[in-house]
Amino acid sequence: LTLAAAQLGPIARDASRESVVRRLVSLLERAAGHGCRLVVFPEMALTTFFPRWLIEDEDEVAGFFESAMPNAQVAPLFETAARLGTGFTLGYCEQVGAGDTMRRYNTAILVDAGGNIAGKYRKVHVPGNPEFDPALGLQHLEPWYFDDGDLGFPVFDCLDTRIGMLICNDRRWPEPWRVLALQGAELVLLGYNSPAQLPDYPRQNALRTDHHQLPMRAAAYQNGLWIVASAKAGHEEGCDMMGGSCIISPSSEVVAVSSTLDDELVVYTADLGLAGEYRDFFDMSRCRRPETYGLICDRRGEGDPLTAEEWARRLRHPAGRDPGT
Amino acid sequence: LTLAAAQLGPIARDASRESVVRRLVSLLERAAGHGCRLVVFPEMALTTFFPRWLIEDEDEVAGFFESAMPNAQVAPLFETAARLGTGFTLGYCEQVGAGDTMRRYNTAILVDAGGNIAGKYRKVHVPGNPEFDPALGLQHLEPWYFDDGDLGFPVFDCLDTRIGMLICNDRRWPEPWRVLALQGAELVLLGYNSPAQLPDYPRQNALRTDHHQLPMRAAAYQNGLWIVASAKAGHEEGCDMMGGSCIISPSSEVVAVSSTLDDELVVYTADLGLAGEYRDFFDMSRCRRPETYGLICDRRGEGDPLTAEEWARRLRHPAGRDPGT
Repeated sequence: LTLAAAQLGPIARDASRESVVRRLVSLLERAAGHGCRLVVFPEMALTTFFPRWLIEDEDEVAGFFESAMPNAQVAPLFETAARLGTGFTLGYCEQVGAGDTMRRYNTAILVDAGGNIAGKYRKVHVPGNPEFDPALGLQHLEPWYFDDGDLGFPVFDCLDTRIGMLICNDRRWPEPWRVLALQGAELVLLGYNSPAQLPDYPRQNALRTDHHQLPMRAAAYQNGLWIVASAKAGHEEGCDMMGGSCIISPSSEVVAVSSTLDDELVVYTADLGLAGEYRDFFDMSRCRRPETYGLICDRRGEGDPLTAEEWARRLRHPAGRDPGT
Repeated sequence: LTLAAAQLGPIARDASRESVVRRLVSLLERAAGHGCRLVVFPEMALTTFFPRWLIEDEDEVAGFFESAMPNAQVAPLFETAARLGTGFTLGYCEQVGAGDTMRRYNTAILVDAGGNIAGKYRKVHVPGNPEFDPALGLQHLEPWYFDDGDLGFPVFDCLDTRIGMLICNDRRWPEPWRVLALQGAELVLLGYNSPAQLPDYPRQNALRTDHHQLPMRAAAYQNGLWIVASAKAGHEEGCDMMGGSCIISPSSEVVAVSSTLDDELVVYTADLGLAGEYRDFFDMSRCRRPETYGLICDRRGEGDPLTAEEWARRLRHPAGRDPGT
């Protein structure tokens, strides 16, 4: 299966949807020319990364969201996919309803080679500060604008494989990858917008690329997954965002990676069978010990150590609502 | 806190406990000379890695196990720890009871700077083949000899920090690290015996060192942990075992690593505060979404995808036996 990460360079705050969609269509056409069956666009691929600002004008905020998908402005992308037989994933800002019941999500959709929506995911790990905080060097107001995703971590059978989607910060947590693998995902598609530097954690600045790749490389190995990660990159509205769009093999190897901070295709032909080889190596159904993992689901954050008695009770009576295989 | 991984070179099948303990004492003394307060010895540090053979002579098998700890043969190690004020962890084969109720574990103990046992862990993820299988290129008969650990993943307060222990294969799974971090561990000590090559998975051979470090580096970063990993290394009884004993910072960096396949000390002075910096960055109690992680505890291996209805039910009624912080 030939895959592409379609990295995007910066999108201006006042860029029209039409101008952005033209860039997406161009990347999709070029990818199809390379034989790609599936193209991964970044998180929030239709707009600038507006959560860097606290925008008080509700009309401007609403202008970053899509109330229907597809819609007239993005229709050319869907038509191109159907015409070329090349599917894609697209991150965008989704608005559901209006007024008091309105919900807004950081969303990605999977569109199949026929140009039809085959799956939707809404970002679960929405990072950053929930309110403007002048003490912070970097405003990242996603929780101000977005609700937590309410679809869980679904998987979709498409292109003769099983696909999951994650978005940006999700990649830093080990749990989403495992939940996708426990449903048989072989391929995970992820878009991101990540600042190139963290002014509030300056010791991490030199490690940004490693901290981007590391959790994905580990997840690929530990779960037998192919991963395609696609960046919005470059200098966007005064902010520097990292590039590093990449394709990672279940062996943990970064097999292809972007070399610019602009619109760029990263293409690789993946041997999906390699996912099976690593699944076989780890043999989760024989070797995992979920009776010892309960705290992962029972606790949100750090708590007291379990006593020997508490451990013994847990091991005698594992959670096991759904023992599975 | 100055830490050391005390890597061991090979131990012969007929090596006496006394000869091995002399090597351990020598390493402990040298570590104390470097100012170390805590020294990590490998898994099964008192014997050769006998699960590479199917040994039918029960007397020989029993000879690899300890029925009491400390015992007369290892007492010099405990005495040296108390005399120097340097604690250690030691992996060994533990026998409990005899006859029909006998249990055997792959165990590690934490010994404090006073020479007293402060904690015990029994390996949970016991890898390999449960019976001799002539089709395999590598016999790894741990499940033949060992019961699964029955103590969970306990943590221990010692040397003004909170310590967890893991053993060898445990390091490849993301769950044990998270369970330790959710109990406030800052430092995880791990011993291992890992073959240098995997004849049954030859494509992994060139990646062995990366596959050893990667899950630990990711776990250090994702959980804000210092990790000390100590190998039994070198050419032991016809088998090549990897070295690569290392100390890993919560930044994910391998800050010290062994350069031989023999007895060797790897020393580093760790800033335990760095664990807190990464805990703060991830802010688990605010940012984790355990209501979406349930499959990790409910399933052992891969199963059917959850439907949208099943996801909705899970998100409405999270497992939450112990919501914690």
